[in-house]
Order: sequence, then structure tokens, then C-alpha cells
Amino acid sequence: MSNRIPVGLVGVTGYTGMELARILAGHPGLELVSVTSRKEAGKRLEDIYPFLRGTGPGALEISLPSPRELASRCRLVFLAVPHKTAMEMADALLCENVKVVDLSADFRINDKAVYEQWYATEHTRAHRLEEAVYGLPELYREEIVSADLVANPGCYPTSAILGLCPVLARGLVETDGIVIDSKSGTSGAGRKAKVGSLFCEVHDSFRAYGLGTHRHTPEIEQELSKAAGASLTVSFNTHLLPIDRGILSTIYTRLRPGTDLETVRAAYGEQYHGEPWVRVLPEGTLPETRWVRGTNFCDIGVVLDSRTNRLIILAAIDNLCRGASGQAVVNANLMLGLEPAAGLQAAPLMP
Amino acid sequence: MSNRIPVGLVGVTGYTGMELARILAGHPGLELVSVTSRKEAGKRLEDIYPFLRGTGPGALEISLPSPRELASRCRLVFLAVPHKTAMEMADALLCENVKVVDLSADFRINDKAVYEQWYATEHTRAHRLEEAVYGLPELYREEIVSADLVANPGCYPTSAILGLCPVLARGLVETDGIVIDSKSGTSGAGRKAKVGSLFCEVHDSFRAYGLGTHRHTPEIEQELSKAAGASLTVSFNTHLLPIDRGILSTIYTRLRPGTDLETVRAAYGEQYHGEPWVRVLPEGTLPETRWVRGTNFCDIGVVLDSRTNRLIILAAIDNLCRGASGQAVVNANLMLGLEPAAGLQAAPLMP
Amino acid sequence: MSNRIPVGLVGVTGYTGMELARILAGHPGLELVSVTSRKEAGKRLEDIYPFLRGTGPGALEISLPSPRELASRCRLVFLAVPHKTAMEMADALLCENVKVVDLSADFRINDKAVYEQWYATEHTRAHRLEEAVYGLPELYREEIVSADLVANPGCYPTSAILGLCPVLARGLVETDGIVIDSKSGTSGAGRKAKVGSLFCEVHDSFRAYGLGTHRHTPEIEQELSKAAGASLTVSFNTHLLPIDRGILSTIYTRLRPGTDLETVRAAYGEQYHGEPWVRVLPEGTLPETRWVRGTNFCDIGVVLDSRTNRLIILAAIDNLCRGASGQAVVNANLMLGLEPAAGLQAAPLMP
Amino acid sequence: MSNRIPVGLVGVTGYTGMELARILAGHPGLELVSVTSRKEAGKRLEDIYPFLRGTGPGALEISLPSPRELASRCRLVFLAVPHKTAMEMADALLCENVKVVDLSADFRINDKAVYEQWYATEHTRAHRLEEAVYGLPELYREEIVSADLVANPGCYPTSAILGLCPVLARGLVETDGIVIDSKSGTSGAGRKAKVGSLFCEVHDSFRAYGLGTHRHTPEIEQELSKAAGASLTVSFNTHLLPIDRGILSTIYTRLRPGTDLETVRAAYGEQYHGEPWVRVLPEGTLPETRWVRGTNFCDIGVVLDSRTNRLIILAAIDNLCRGASGQAVVNANLMLGLEPAAGLQAAPLMP
Repeated sequence: MSNRIPVGLVGVTGYTGMELARILAGHPGLELVSVTSRKEAGKRLEDIYPFLRGTGPGALEISLPSPRELASRCRLVFLAVPHKTAMEMADALLCENVKVVDLSADFRINDKAVYEQWYATEHTRAHRLEEAVYGLPELYREEIVSADLVANPGCYPTSAILGLCPVLARGLVETDGIVIDSKSGTSGAGRKAKVGSLFCEVHDSFRAYGLGTHRHTPEIEQELSKAAGASLTVSFNTHLLPIDRGILSTIYTRLRPGTDLETVRAAYGEQYHGEPWVRVLPEGTLPETRWVRGTNFCDIGVVLDSRTNRLIILAAIDNLCRGASGQAVVNANLMLGLEPAAGLQAAPLMP
Repeated sequence: MSNRIPVGLVGVTGYTGMELARILAGHPGLELVSVTSRKEAGKRLEDIYPFLRGTGPGALEISLPSPRELASRCRLVFLAVPHKTAMEMADALLCENVKVVDLSADFRINDKAVYEQWYATEHTRAHRLEEAVYGLPELYREEIVSADLVANPGCYPTSAILGLCPVLARGLVETDGIVIDSKSGTSGAGRKAKVGSLFCEVHDSFRAYGLGTHRHTPEIEQELSKAAGASLTVSFNTHLLPIDRGILSTIYTRLRPGTDLETVRAAYGEQYHGEPWVRVLPEGTLPETRWVRGTNFCDIGVVLDSRTNRLIILAAIDNLCRGASGQAVVNANLMLGLEPAAGLQAAPLMP
Repeated sequence: MSNRIPVGLVGVTGYTGMELARILAGHPGLELVSVTSRKEAGKRLEDIYPFLRGTGPGALEISLPSPRELASRCRLVFLAVPHKTAMEMADALLCENVKVVDLSADFRINDKAVYEQWYATEHTRAHRLEEAVYGLPELYREEIVSADLVANPGCYPTSAILGLCPVLARGLVETDGIVIDSKSGTSGAGRKAKVGSLFCEVHDSFRAYGLGTHRHTPEIEQELSKAAGASLTVSFNTHLLPIDRGILSTIYTRLRPGTDLETVRAAYGEQYHGEPWVRVLPEGTLPETRWVRGTNFCDIGVVLDSRTNRLIILAAIDNLCRGASGQAVVNANLMLGLEPAAGLQAAPLMP
Repeated sequence: MSNRIPVGLVGVTGYTGMELARILAGHPGLELVSVTSRKEAGKRLEDIYPFLRGTGPGALEISLPSPRELASRCRLVFLAVPHKTAMEMADALLCENVKVVDLSADFRINDKAVYEQWYATEHTRAHRLEEAVYGLPELYREEIVSADLVANPGCYPTSAILGLCPVLARGLVETDGIVIDSKSGTSGAGRKAKVGSLFCEVHDSFRAYGLGTHRHTPEIEQELSKAAGASLTVSFNTHLLPIDRGILSTIYTRLRPGTDLETVRAAYGEQYHGEPWVRVLPEGTLPETRWVRGTNFCDIGVVLDSRTNRLIILAAIDNLCRGASGQAVVNANLMLGLEPAAGLQAAPLMP
């Protein structure tokens, strides 16, 4: 009998669900004991994901348990379902005294009105907003440790917030006029069958989308405003890359008078000292998305364009791992008293 | 006023329809005057295909004409619709005295019973089978010139038949035991929204499918049997490549006693002498799918593996152009008395 | 005997030389009669580029003529050689009274000192700078028509200048604080064998490079300053895409007080009215690099992010065609009195 | 202080060296203590491979130790150097009583003459051939456990041998006429800077190479002949896929009279029962290279094409992991008395 802690996963047919199953397959302290999918119930996980054959979760039967049943079997449940569905499930599970890591956006935005404006739907479980902790370990480790409900950060926000916090928190850059030019791999578009995500529509091409209107904007502004200690607005814009995984955010800021690159580099060193998952690259080295592939790393590079006095910050993550399921596992590790890095120690897959 | 010949296109939302629109945009002798799509009627072509803005067909309004209306406006109609739908439309159009190039499989198989077995549906217009000409110009140019109905060949069969005919017709290889190992780009899977064709399901991966069961098998066997003068069976097997366009068929045959590579090479030289679209590569040069990208070329390489006495034939085409719409335009050119190469003279797009 | 105008190409082993050969293969008014390469002299073009077999230039023998020999055979010569080599060849050819389109950077920068600073080499033919015309047809058509020496624009600058000119020339955006975030396909890195350009180093990944230091910066600033009527500085930053061809520049500007999106859209309409190669996309449609693949089009989209009052301009080109060889052919067409679009009428290759 | 077993790696700048470093970064029982590279000596591993920052091996300094120095520090050394160099190093290390896993071809071919014919070089350490064990654990586990020198199998042979052994060993298929049509990702071409491996030469394309002449042929025939108990010859042919990692071999055999698919499937079940790294897929499921990405799995699918009585066997591996460095680590585990799967338990990276 395993003495790993039993956990459940609701929603396994999307890429974040698939990624959670992959990570949990090699986790020494967590055991995936329940996998939920309306569409695939009755099959074994390896029937829909043959790559999981021969791993622990492969043989697991996909089922459709009630919240109560889930709670009786699991100490923690990961929700990899669409927003709105997530808020209801999270609430039901919390009522059954099981911990929840919600990968949707439902509990990320502290302000109900802001959520409702950007997501164009009513927040029906707003009474849970206060207890929800924003699951970015570098900023909220202590709160996560004692949380019952963690709102797992969005992929783009993870890169933008980790990239900007050190300089905003220390007042090294102007808080207005920040531009975040982000590029994401196609797994970020989900696993739904739609023409725009077909291989022949994405491959060998590149395009922008959702300029100035992406739903991750309020999440980014909320956390950056907290870091800066003042409300700020960013121009956040997204592009689709013909790669499976990876986000690179190129962030344009203006250096405040009296600051220099050395001070900036010291700020990053100080902020992320001892953090296992943030790698501040040496001067002259710029991040590549493949260097973080399959891992929880966030690689950060900073460049000073002295002709225009702009500080350019580059932040790269794997959108499925650090930007979703890997971060969810770190949060679960913290909530359950495990080693934070458990299950996430494989080096990046290169090439 | 244009004095180009007016033609119509039924079915424009798939990749073969898109490719026809692309080719006809630059055709000096054909003018696309009608584009049909149930789903997109009322829009202009450039609304659904912004890449066609600023080209002739871009401004064309997509409509849903009756066969009679189509016939009144066009001298020839291309059918880029699913099989079964195609047979009915072709028949209706022929009754209105308009020429038809059918890109579906409906009139490729001479034997109604064979068609019905492989396509698992009744052939309701079998009386048209006899007049239909198999539209492979290197084999049936004369018949195409005087045809009213051309059955445009399948993509895989085009590569296999062009690759094998010279040696089968001359009895240089054994007719049994032929293996055709084909690999196709993903546009061959169509433009329908399905999970299996998503970028993240195809990219950076490779797989086989439909081993021994692909519907192009009877079409290949029909034409190869004619070439060999005897009924033959092939093992035809297909794979999915993470590229947009391109088919490479690797064909394994056994050299007949008394034959050698020189004789084989002479056979190819003789068969394709003067053919503008078949390039027999010099010894030591093997085809690459990108060398034919966007064109009507079929590149052929032959290698003798003397250790096993196998003659290995490689045939590469662009599945959308030579394997579908480009070949359809050549057929239309021939049927309408135009220069065969009209509209197809752009060099391959490299890289 | 052809009555096309004979032209020459110096430097054929790189991607811009390859692209010139591709375009000229289908050009109705220009005949490629001389191809130069030190490394490959003695071979036929189709020996090094089998994709050109069966096209006119394929059979051409690669040679190493003197400038005088070249001039005796050609009316115009394209230079697709590295900078520095180009300035010397251009001067020698001009002395022999042959027209020159130089694809290198050698005659793009009007100010010798600026050139020497960014390219870290002496400009030894600076007396030719004044007569050189910057070959962007939308801005300098008249001058190109009568020029003997055209400096063909860089790939990134073509996208940035076409994207920004309409609003800078009309004073609709602030001239300071402009950020140009550009992404280019890998053919822009050239065809030299280097580890960083290997398939396994580029595929399924994305990275920034040359932040704030790219040599195209002074070229962009020169032309934008002219358009704005005042010296300006931009933050220009580049990224490497895992695609063959294509540049997308995302350009961030601040709208001037009293201006709105309607005025901006009118400016683009006015500036590019009647221009065959610039497509201003309708509201809501954003460019994709594949929509211009293989063509001379520049697709432009504009978006107003009203939360931050930023005007975001997107400009997409094919870096090899519009960003190099296609534009060179348009320039040659203009210099030789041909139809501007000759040889460039194929629709984009999709998908 | 670590009580992991110290091991060394000679040759780290190629993809197999890189992959070994990646795997060893997460190995619980082996510690990489020495990394050798002539070209990069003096740098730290993370200087040339930033993706390894923050992992154990990242901080390791690359050096150039003598065999004696290496032997004093390591219990086992992996050789990831070109053939010929490998045979000399292996011999020198064995003389110093350190175990060796050689990833080159130097000790794979039992017959010196065959090696010398295919590799066109003298075998100067042929006295070591007898003690060398062919490192395919499913076939030679016992011998590996007690070996000092393991010849790590080639990538293609691993797929072909695992795919064919069960049916050849049981006489279920004819031994003549076997065709192995293999396709490999581009990392198999190595990390040397050459034009043919550039992104723009490989991406969005597909081609065959080395038909009938690949150096892995004698290795495949040697092992298959042993399995069949009779000397046999195969037609082995290779293709280049535009993917980073992965081999799929499509293997064509003829079923012997009196055999059927059920017997065949039973043979695979029996042969690989209890083997952790071979997954025989259920009927109807065919392997995809991505399902084994980053792992030591070999996925096998079998299909009977009853029209032609051909048994088609599909075998997929990751060429860098199972086809090289992952298998090398399994061999090291066995040679050093560790758990065979140590360091290799991560699930495949999907997508």
C-alpha cells in the first residue's frame, strides 16, 4: 500500500489536465486516485492517453464522482475545468473539507466586479474570494502553506509578474507606460477542436491576437499594483507561436532617474535568492523557451537599452508546467506539507 | 472585360478548395466567377481567406447557385466537396452541359462494386463511370482533352502511380510483393476541426495510420494493374508528417532477373521525356518534399539496393497542388484547350 | 530568342540569392543570364538547387565573371553578397554603366559616420551614397525609376517603416517612446552553417536576440525621422521564430491628443491608396505571416488599446520576398521600365 | 556529501552528451563528477547549456582529464565521442579498471572485418570486441550486469531489433524480404554545424537518405540473425523527419504459413512480459513518436495486412533517450547494481 497522499483531478481531457497527469505519474509524495471527465468516464486513463501506459495513473479508471465521494477519497483536488464550472466545484469541495487548487481564473481576481467585467459572467461564489490565495509561491508562500483554496495563476501573468515584481517593488522603473509583449505556444489555446488551432493554421506562421483585451490583463495589473504599491495599468498583448509549449514575455519599462543596470540586477538577485524555480540569467544571456520545457523554471533576462533608457525584461516559462500544472503541484506540495520541489525535479527536455 | 474562360468552384472551405482559389488567382486563362459554400454563402472570399485580398478572386461573393445557374455562368466546374455529394453534383452539372473536374473519389474507380466496398456507400451515379476519365495527364492526356468529366486522382495514388508505371509497364520489376510506404503532410487530413489534427497533436511527432486499409488502395491497384497488364495487389501504408504540404512515397520493389539500374533509369527517361511536370532526378539525388512545394511537379528518384536486389523508388509531390488542385487545373487546361501549364508556372517555394 | 531584359545575380548560395533565382524563374520580362558564386562556380544552378530543375535558370552555369564581363551581358545586376563586398562590386559595376540593386546595407544609410559606427567598418565607396536611392517603392517610386543604384531596404525596416509612416507623416502619434517588437523567421539568419541555426536549436523554441543593438536600427530611424520631419529614436528589438519565412512587427505608439482610430485608419487608407503591395486589413483582422508567404505584400493591422491610449500597429511581410528579393525585383522592374508587379503575381502560398 | 556513485562523461557538446547530462541531472544514484570536452574545457556546463542552471551538473567545470585521472574519480565513464576516438578511449579506461559504456559504434559489431568494411577504418582495439556486451537490456540483461564494457546500441537498431526479435525468434515470419523503413528526428544528425541540418533546410520538409547504405545495417543484421538463428539480410532505409526527437520504424514482413495475428501478439506479450521499457500497444493503437518523448520506452504496434499477408510492425523510440543516452544510463544502472529504472522514471513529455 502506498503512503503517498491521495489527490484527485477534475477535468483531464484538456492540456492542463494531461500535464497534471504527467507530473503526478512521477510524483513521490502524491498519488492520483481519482480522475474525472464527463466525456471519457468509464475508460482508463491510458485508453485516452496511451503515453501514460506503464505509469501509475495509466491504469486509473476515469469516473464521475460527486464532491462528497471525491472528498472521501482525496486530501486535495485539482480543478482543470473551465471558469464558472470551477467556482461551483471548488465551493462544493471546500464544503466537504477537501483542499482545492483551482487552475481556472475564478478565484484569481480579488474584486468581484473586475472579474465579472472581464469574464462577462456573474461570480456566484464570491464569498470564497477572500480565503482564496493567489498561488505564486515566490510572492505568497506563507499564505499558500495554510490555504484551503489556491487560485493557480494564469500562464501569462506568471511570466509578467515574476519579471516585473523586483523592479516595481523597489521603485526602479516608472509605473506608467509598461508594455508587455507576450508570445505563447499553441497548447495555451486548449485542446478543443477548432479550425484556428489546426496544425495547418498554426504551423510555419505567427500572429497576434487579443491586443489590449486579454482576460489575463486584470490579473497582471492586480498583482503588479500590489507590488508597486500603487494602482497601475499595463498594455498587455499576446501572440501565437508555432510551438507546443512555452511563453516568452518581452517587457518594456522606463528606468527611473538615478537607477542603473547594476541596481536592477541586484534587485533580481535579492528577490529571487534561494528560490529554486527562478533563474536570473547572467548578463548577455537571454532566455529561450526550450530551456524551461517541461519544468517549473521561470528564466529571466534583463537588458538596458541605453539609447532609449528602456529596461527590457524577458521572462520565459513553460505555459503548461510553470504556467499551470507544475505550479499547481508546487502549491499542492506546500498545502500538504511536502517538499516544494517534489515531483518537479526533471531537468528541461533539450532539444 | 476579361476574355478568360469562366469557371466555378463548388466547396471552398477545405484545403483543396483554398488551393484552387490560390492557383486560379494567378491563372491567365481561367477566371473564377462562382464560388460555392453552404457555410459561408454571403461573405466575400477575402473575408474567409484574407490572404486573397488584392487578388482577383478575393472580392468574389460566395453563393449557393443551382446547377443550372452555375452552368449558365461557367464552362467548367471544379468539385471540391466530399465523395457522394460529388457524384450527384457532377451528374447534375453534366446534364446542364458544363464540364466537370471532380476532386473527390467518386469517379476514380471503374468498378462500381469495388468503389462501394471501399467507400461503404452506394454509387448512385454509376452510369457516369464509363465516360469519366482518370485525370493523370502523363497517362491519359488524349482522353482528358476530349472529356466532359474528369476524375481527379487522389494524392497518394498520384505519387505511387507516377513512381511505378515506368517499371511495371516494361516488366522490369516483380508485380507481387510491392510495398508502398507513404508519408503525407497534414493538409491531407482536411480542414475539419478535429482533435487529431490540432497543432499540438501533430507538431514534433510522427505516426502511421490506416495501415493496409487506406481508401486510395483500390485506385492505386487499378492503375498499376493496367500498367502491368495484370491484376496486382500492393501493400499500401500511410503516415502523418508534421508539415503543411507534401507527400513522399518510398516504394519497395524487386528487380526482375536480367534487369539493371541502367535499364530502369532509361525506362523513366523514356516514359517522362517531354513531360513538364515529372522530374527524374539524377543518380545520387533523392527527392525532398519542399522541392515541389506549391507546384505541380512530381520528383522521382530511384536507388538500387544491390545487397537485397530491391529497386527503391521515391516519388514526391505537393499533395494539395499536384495531388489535388494543381492537377485539377492542368486537367481543366486540357479540357478547355488552354496551354497545359497555364497558371502553374511559379517555381517551388524554397525554403 | 528571348526578348526579356538580361540581368545578373552575384551571390546565389544564400537565401536571398536563392529567392531571387526563384522569382526570376517565373519572370516574364527579366531573364537571368549570369549567376555568380565563388564557392559553386562551374556547377549548374540546378546542381545546387534541384528545386529549380525544369525552370529556366536551372540550367544556367554558375560562373565568376569580372564586372566588365557582367556589364557586357546584363542591363542590371542584383548583389546578394555581404556588406562591404557589396559596396566595392556596386561601384565597379556602376563604372561599367550597368544598373545595380544592392541587397546589402552598404548604401542604405545616408550618413557615412552612422554606417561606420553600426557596421564597424569603413565605408570605402561613400561617394556613391548620394546617388543611391532607398528602394522602398511606396516612398521613393519616382527616384527609383531614374536610379542607377538602389539600396534595397532591410527586412525589419521594410515592416517598421511601412507600418509607421502614415501616422508619423501626419503627426498622429508621439515621436518619442516608440517600441518596435519584431519577430522574424529563421531564413533571416542566413544560410551559413552555424550551431545556433540548426533545426534542433530553433525548432519548438522562441528567443529574443540583439535587443537594442540590431544593425537595422539606424535605417529605421533614418526613414522614420524623414517621415516625421524630426529626428527620432526607437527601441527596436528582435526575436527568432521557428518558421522559414515571415516577419511580424508589433509596434507600440502613443496616440496624440485629439486623434482617434478613425483618423488613423483614414491615414493608412490615404497613404496606401492604389498601392498594390500594401494591404490595410479591415478592423478586427490582424495579420498572420503566412498570409504574405512567398509574396511582396505588406499586411498592416491597427488596434487602439483605449485603456492605455496606445495605438498598436502590426506589420507582416515575407522577409525573403518583400523584405529582400521580391522588393529587389520590384525595384528592378521600375528601373528598367517594366510593369512594377511583373514576376510577383502569385498569390500567397497557403497553408 | 553525496553517496551517489561518481561517473564521468567524455564528449558533452553533441546531442547524446547533452542528453546524458540532462538525465544524470535528475539521477538519484549516479553523480556526474567529470565532464570532458576539448572545445569547451574551462567553462562550466551551465555556460554552454544554460538549461542546466540550477541543476547539479550545471556548476560542473568542463575539463580534459587523462584516462588515469578519470579512473581515479569515476566508477564508470560514458563515451559520447565519435567512433574510432571511442575505441581508443575505451581501451585506455578499461586498462585503468573503470567501467565503460560506449555510445559509439566501435564495439557493437562482433566481426572486425564487417566493422572495417562499413565504417571504412581499421579497428585498432579489436581485442576488446569479445568482452564487449551489446547493451540492449531486453536481450542481454545478464551479460550487461557483469560487463566492464558495454557497446550501447545504435538508435535505429534499437527500434528494429526490439520490433522484430519476438517474431524472428519464434519463426513466425519469413527471414528473407524484410524491409525496414525508418524515419528519424533531426537530432540524430548530430549537433555539428552543417547546411543540411539548418532549420530552413529541414523544417516543413521530408526526405530519404542513405538508402541501403546506412551504417546501422550490419548491427541490425547481426542481432536479427542471432534471433532468427540464421543469417539474414534486410533492406534498411532511413528518412529525416522535421522533429527534434523520435524514430518510427515501419517494418514489413511476411507471415509464415500457419501463423496468425493472435500467435504474433502472444509472442510479443511473452517476450516483453515484465519489461518496464517495452509497451506493446493494444490492437488498433499505433505508436506515435511523441508518446515516448524524453523516455526510455519502446512502443510497439503490430498490424496484419491480410490482403497481402504482410505483418507490419511499428516500433517507436526517442532516438536520444532510448536510442542513446537513456539506454546508456540503464546499462550503467545494471553494471553498477542500481535499480534499472533509476533516473528514467519521468513520464513522456506531452504535448
